[in-house]
Amino acid sequence: MLETMQDVIELATAPDARERLVRRFMRVRGRTVGLVAPLTPEDQMIQSMPDVSPSKWHLAHTTWFFEIFVLSRYAPGYTAFDERYGYLFNSYYNKLGNRHPRPQRGMLSRPSWDEVQRYRDHVNAACLRLIRQIPDDGLTELTDVIILGLNHEQQHQELIVTDIKHVLWSNPLMPAYHAHANSPVPTTAPQKWFEHRGGLVQIGCDPNDPSSRTPFCFDSETPRHDTYVRPFRLAGRPVTCGEYREFIESGGYDKPEYWLSDGWAEVEAQEWRAPLYWHKQHGEWLVYTLAGVKPVVDSEPVCHVSFYEAAAYAAWAGKRLPTEAEWELFGRTQMADGNMQECGTLHPASSPCAGLGPWQIYGDVWEWTASPYTPYPGYKAPPGAVGEYNGKFMCNQMVLRGGSCATPGDHIRATYRNFFPPNARWQFSGIRLAEDL
Amino acid sequence: MLETMQDVIELATAPDARERLVRRFMRVRGRTVGLVAPLTPEDQMIQSMPDVSPSKWHLAHTTWFFEIFVLSRYAPGYTAFDERYGYLFNSYYNKLGNRHPRPQRGMLSRPSWDEVQRYRDHVNAACLRLIRQIPDDGLTELTDVIILGLNHEQQHQELIVTDIKHVLWSNPLMPAYHAHANSPVPTTAPQKWFEHRGGLVQIGCDPNDPSSRTPFCFDSETPRHDTYVRPFRLAGRPVTCGEYREFIESGGYDKPEYWLSDGWAEVEAQEWRAPLYWHKQHGEWLVYTLAGVKPVVDSEPVCHVSFYEAAAYAAWAGKRLPTEAEWELFGRTQMADGNMQECGTLHPASSPCAGLGPWQIYGDVWEWTASPYTPYPGYKAPPGAVGEYNGKFMCNQMVLRGGSCATPGDHIRATYRNFFPPNARWQFSGIRLAEDL
Amino acid sequence: MLETMQDVIELATAPDARERLVRRFMRVRGRTVGLVAPLTPEDQMIQSMPDVSPSKWHLAHTTWFFEIFVLSRYAPGYTAFDERYGYLFNSYYNKLGNRHPRPQRGMLSRPSWDEVQRYRDHVNAACLRLIRQIPDDGLTELTDVIILGLNHEQQHQELIVTDIKHVLWSNPLMPAYHAHANSPVPTTAPQKWFEHRGGLVQIGCDPNDPSSRTPFCFDSETPRHDTYVRPFRLAGRPVTCGEYREFIESGGYDKPEYWLSDGWAEVEAQEWRAPLYWHKQHGEWLVYTLAGVKPVVDSEPVCHVSFYEAAAYAAWAGKRLPTEAEWELFGRTQMADGNMQECGTLHPASSPCAGLGPWQIYGDVWEWTASPYTPYPGYKAPPGAVGEYNGKFMCNQMVLRGGSCATPGDHIRATYRNFFPPNARWQFSGIRLAEDL
Amino acid sequence: MLETMQDVIELATAPDARERLVRRFMRVRGRTVGLVAPLTPEDQMIQSMPDVSPSKWHLAHTTWFFEIFVLSRYAPGYTAFDERYGYLFNSYYNKLGNRHPRPQRGMLSRPSWDEVQRYRDHVNAACLRLIRQIPDDGLTELTDVIILGLNHEQQHQELIVTDIKHVLWSNPLMPAYHAHANSPVPTTAPQKWFEHRGGLVQIGCDPNDPSSRTPFCFDSETPRHDTYVRPFRLAGRPVTCGEYREFIESGGYDKPEYWLSDGWAEVEAQEWRAPLYWHKQHGEWLVYTLAGVKPVVDSEPVCHVSFYEAAAYAAWAGKRLPTEAEWELFGRTQMADGNMQECGTLHPASSPCAGLGPWQIYGDVWEWTASPYTPYPGYKAPPGAVGEYNGKFMCNQMVLRGGSCATPGDHIRATYRNFFPPNARWQFSGIRLAEDL
Repeated sequence: MLETMQDVIELATAPDARERLVRRFMRVRGRTVGLVAPLTPEDQMIQSMPDVSPSKWHLAHTTWFFEIFVLSRYAPGYTAFDERYGYLFNSYYNKLGNRHPRPQRGMLSRPSWDEVQRYRDHVNAACLRLIRQIPDDGLTELTDVIILGLNHEQQHQELIVTDIKHVLWSNPLMPAYHAHANSPVPTTAPQKWFEHRGGLVQIGCDPNDPSSRTPFCFDSETPRHDTYVRPFRLAGRPVTCGEYREFIESGGYDKPEYWLSDGWAEVEAQEWRAPLYWHKQHGEWLVYTLAGVKPVVDSEPVCHVSFYEAAAYAAWAGKRLPTEAEWELFGRTQMADGNMQECGTLHPASSPCAGLGPWQIYGDVWEWTASPYTPYPGYKAPPGAVGEYNGKFMCNQMVLRGGSCATPGDHIRATYRNFFPPNARWQFSGIRLAEDL
Repeated sequence: MLETMQDVIELATAPDARERLVRRFMRVRGRTVGLVAPLTPEDQMIQSMPDVSPSKWHLAHTTWFFEIFVLSRYAPGYTAFDERYGYLFNSYYNKLGNRHPRPQRGMLSRPSWDEVQRYRDHVNAACLRLIRQIPDDGLTELTDVIILGLNHEQQHQELIVTDIKHVLWSNPLMPAYHAHANSPVPTTAPQKWFEHRGGLVQIGCDPNDPSSRTPFCFDSETPRHDTYVRPFRLAGRPVTCGEYREFIESGGYDKPEYWLSDGWAEVEAQEWRAPLYWHKQHGEWLVYTLAGVKPVVDSEPVCHVSFYEAAAYAAWAGKRLPTEAEWELFGRTQMADGNMQECGTLHPASSPCAGLGPWQIYGDVWEWTASPYTPYPGYKAPPGAVGEYNGKFMCNQMVLRGGSCATPGDHIRATYRNFFPPNARWQFSGIRLAEDL
Repeated sequence: MLETMQDVIELATAPDARERLVRRFMRVRGRTVGLVAPLTPEDQMIQSMPDVSPSKWHLAHTTWFFEIFVLSRYAPGYTAFDERYGYLFNSYYNKLGNRHPRPQRGMLSRPSWDEVQRYRDHVNAACLRLIRQIPDDGLTELTDVIILGLNHEQQHQELIVTDIKHVLWSNPLMPAYHAHANSPVPTTAPQKWFEHRGGLVQIGCDPNDPSSRTPFCFDSETPRHDTYVRPFRLAGRPVTCGEYREFIESGGYDKPEYWLSDGWAEVEAQEWRAPLYWHKQHGEWLVYTLAGVKPVVDSEPVCHVSFYEAAAYAAWAGKRLPTEAEWELFGRTQMADGNMQECGTLHPASSPCAGLGPWQIYGDVWEWTASPYTPYPGYKAPPGAVGEYNGKFMCNQMVLRGGSCATPGDHIRATYRNFFPPNARWQFSGIRLAEDL
Repeated sequence: MLETMQDVIELATAPDARERLVRRFMRVRGRTVGLVAPLTPEDQMIQSMPDVSPSKWHLAHTTWFFEIFVLSRYAPGYTAFDERYGYLFNSYYNKLGNRHPRPQRGMLSRPSWDEVQRYRDHVNAACLRLIRQIPDDGLTELTDVIILGLNHEQQHQELIVTDIKHVLWSNPLMPAYHAHANSPVPTTAPQKWFEHRGGLVQIGCDPNDPSSRTPFCFDSETPRHDTYVRPFRLAGRPVTCGEYREFIESGGYDKPEYWLSDGWAEVEAQEWRAPLYWHKQHGEWLVYTLAGVKPVVDSEPVCHVSFYEAAAYAAWAGKRLPTEAEWELFGRTQMADGNMQECGTLHPASSPCAGLGPWQIYGDVWEWTASPYTPYPGYKAPPGAVGEYNGKFMCNQMVLRGGSCATPGDHIRATYRNFFPPNARWQFSGIRLAEDL
């Protein structure tokens, strides 16, 4: 799927494959830096909880990824910008040696922000040289790895946004990230239901399918495989803040009968009374957004709820959450029908890639499914350190589908499997309802 | 499935349904008390970790279950033995009010063990009176609840054994539970593989199926439903201690590449180097068993491993763990073919219900599957407090199948879904390998 | 100081020094067992918090003390009752090797209570044989060590009482220890003040002073030394529950200005609102005592307050806590004047050793002083493991003086230095006020 | 005591009291900013452990102190720079309302460093106006409060240095603070002992004593009072790194007999094997200093040891730590004899205020004493919020005396009582030995 008309033009007019890769590389890498433009170096230092990484760390880590998986392998004679960065900016690749402890990422005033920019420049220049100079017979393999690196970087683009939101909110001054930041699009259409009669179906990505509109997918989305689903229907749009307020106001957070056992334990231990970023002032619900504090808007999709809250809401509503197979069947129809606006970028503000008409499925909020994140039948992790990318996380996580207002357009596709632990709330995560037919 | 020849005789000779229920009630309730016979009241006080409950608590809690779900509902004029026990011995039923905090169960020297026996006698007598006196039109409903209570009690029989094992092992003196306690049966047969060509199959329990040999199953085993499986094969017997030693000695606990990310974190945090209850002395592996410390026997099934260790072992062996559907397809054939010995009771020592011939599937060790514990398609929790029995735990747990040497024979069936968190090791849990065909 | 008239008679009529030691040994050892008579073996298992030890552990540890410091040194050919007890029942003597971790003392169902009694009998018999058979030239040294062991045992007698109080209170059933248990004696006299004009004075114990009425003191009470005190006065009796209620009801627990910084942090973290064992029901303050729950009696000394609460109360009252030198000057006058009743034993109930007339200083509650527990000038710890008895605890503790209703009479003396961390509340600890003149 | 010749000249030539106060205000406030000159705003964000505060926080907090205690009280019509800073930059004054939680000080990217400078400028300007314009009859009171604020700021100057040292060391890159930073002065003189025959002496500060060379002291140093000391002697210089290495190499960290009980628990829990900032590489001891990593220099005073290590070293050496009275008697002679060099400032590097000749007592390392931090006899905390400055910390802390290479010269005096918990190691804390005569 294309991100903007500009991308279409870029690709169409690029003289050849190398140049198209160069342009895409520049575009993605540039957008990352664009995302931190409203922030000071001080803002980009903070790790407000262990799950959050400082923006500066994201800038450096995504660069390290190219240094390790691209330059050190394919660029003869490449000299590391700083040998010590391998220790500082490895995220979780055990095969690549020891690394700085995750909860200590906020301790790194050095390298400074300026130095990290020089690191990015150094690696960018070396990557561009490599793309242009590698012999023809190495280009395909190189392209695959660079495309992986760019998709990796786009995942971190979303994390930069979710993490800085938590960082700024943790400051009692609650400053805005950007006066015109994106947020979920209000839902104006009445609820409508998508129905499916069930049966043996296929889900997942086949990267070799020539009809695929998404030439890239992660290993975890493969292989495409048969699965059996029962007749079901899915809500045409996510649950709204107004609907969720009813759950709160009817005592949803006080009644264990709606909650999974582990979810109820979190409600009690964390004293959850509403979604993350909500608080009540003078009887009114307010919410911290990337554009600062504002009143909760009933017509917007509810966001920043955990899986536990999503499941409790569904139980309260007499419904359930969709499985990821059910979700994908619905999502595929929307993708196939072209019921998609073009996705905007986060800056400047523009319409995210919400659906047209009665269906609203991509680009508002990630939607918790009822499916634990497990390997698809026949899944094999790739060999080498890159095999640690997805497979080793397939436990204790739930799958989310769709894509949020912070998701790069390239990552909006029917087969995409996002995943987080069931108590995570700092992602742009919401709720879609399902039920048996 | 019948437990012993004595049961067959009892049932065959019982004059009517009431009397059969009375005899079964007496038998199950009596076995619970038999399990604690080798223990002192002091032994039965200890909670050696939050997951463990004192034996005395199990004795009281299983009694409270009948008081709450049977007597207070069906026995007019029943007087509670002690009003305060509702607070002390409720395990996790939120709908039944506040309860004593789980980690504090070891603080209860009062009621004394003697008092708990009087509580059991009081409730037993009232249940027997009720069974014999309830009008005919209430008997079916009463029977259903009592059967649930007996199955509940049998689950706690297994927990009494697993918990006291942990309790006694936590004492530096490491006393034996019983000189002749059961343990997993050595594997003498060579490995043989069960194959299945895949396709659309049915799994789960249909309690209304007249052909069912198991008239009882838990709600979580329902409904029987279609699912699609790919061609696979399963090992005919569990992984042995000797095989697992090879994994240890080849550095399995030092190499993150075999481990799930959360599993590796546990290895590092808990300093796991071997299964629970193993330790090395003078170069030899010893293991604490219910009969005391003894050398590890290579031919026995490996036991007391976590899901993480099971998955790491499978990765090291180039295989994978079975899904619960795959396991059930295999387990069903063994059940259907009658490849089952009669199961012994735990005391006195006797053969557990291991299979005949080359297949060894029931009654040695619970076997971790690759399947998270989620509701089956179409699953509905029953109404009322009893609805909290299973459904609310369907998150962050993995399914185990089979049954161990500590499992009552009534709980050995192809559809039974046991579940524990992936880091649990104090259950009799082992490993069966699978692979794609 | 003598404990009872019976002791006087015993000693007066004993034929010789050996026999007097035998009788004292039997009496002290017997009282320890008497203290646990109202308890079941189950009660004696529980460690309700890390500071608390199970009664059974106290019974075994005080026995181990004689085995290690007396029998293994002076009794040729003595055979340990069980070699493993050195590991299980060493409290904190690093020089004597590894030991069972303190927070795990509640895990010891084995050795059973019966076995521990056999251990006591075995050691008692060996000690008596030794006292009677040791050659004359070894008797003095042996006597010194046995007297130390008996004083050690008496310290544990008080701990048995304070610990079991916490244990039984931790049970939601809050059973009584004994229907007629001692508690602090109500204060009927009006407040009267003891005055001292200050100057250079002496405090501390000189064990070689022939005029001493207390032939034994701990090393920490030595040497007797000069110190300079300013003119001061001390309250003649401890603060009462009624006075303390005023502090509570005037918002004492809500106002940080009365509190030390660390004390305020405890108030917030532990949510202290009243002394330990107090709770409010239907607007009335109740207190758990060894005889069960009863209403707070305003005229009794307030008890079970931490040093932080004592200091906050004193600040609220416009006074301060006494230093230990000030306290000792007062306490000495009471001791010297014979203003002491004979002390009763804990069972059966009898008058504790409260003072006569307007002064009430010994035997109600331990009184927090303003003095950190530090070595006296010139203090030297004795050589060997017994040197760990006191010296290594001289940091992060505050001195308490006096003696409580749970203190054996032998431990009531003007120079005795009890000590606990400033947040400890489970001892019988109260408040005496002081001020500058 | 004067800080530099320049100060002498300033004061001597200032036309009047107001102008002298203005100059002193400017000088102290300016030095604080000078201390952070080698740092980036990113460096000044970090809180590497809860005890540490970010430099930026120190810059703002010391400014807030003047805003609250000076401007809001004495400057009519003063407008707060930002109302929200009262919440953000209050350290521990409960009487002044709620405050930002201490462990969250590293979360404050806003206000930015630039904004904090503007805050300082705003408050500085208002203070200078106030000093110059206040009516004559208010000048004395104002001067007292400003002098307190400047002494407060100087305490934070030392904390800026100790905290940033910990911050930079926490970064795996271990950058230097300043290439020419001060460090303890090597000890070249042989050990010599100061002797005192004991008796009734006076210690503490009398601010009204006209002979005092230090016109300012903190409330905790008062009142001057009598105390009795026994004959003693003190080492003429602190323990050196070389001497401490002997302790390490003789197994000092492995032998509980040298340690206080709580100290040994820290050794085991924190795995202490050497002073903070030391590590061994290729068999050589290295130490992180403000100028980066360098080999340990045997002749320098050992630094960054806890009270527990100081006490263990003294026990190993067969000596003890001095009491604060003993220390003050020694320190007074050095002060009185003029055995003091002028103290340098931290930047640029210059000689710290070490003693002349054989005595070395001020300006190298703070020296742990054996004295808990308790109120002097007759001590009264001042009324109002400023009364929280010292008194409420008089528990669980040990007194340190002397002054370190990071201590402003104004804070070097014989009566100064520094204090930290016994496990603190990040201050410039060392060891002086004492013994009885």
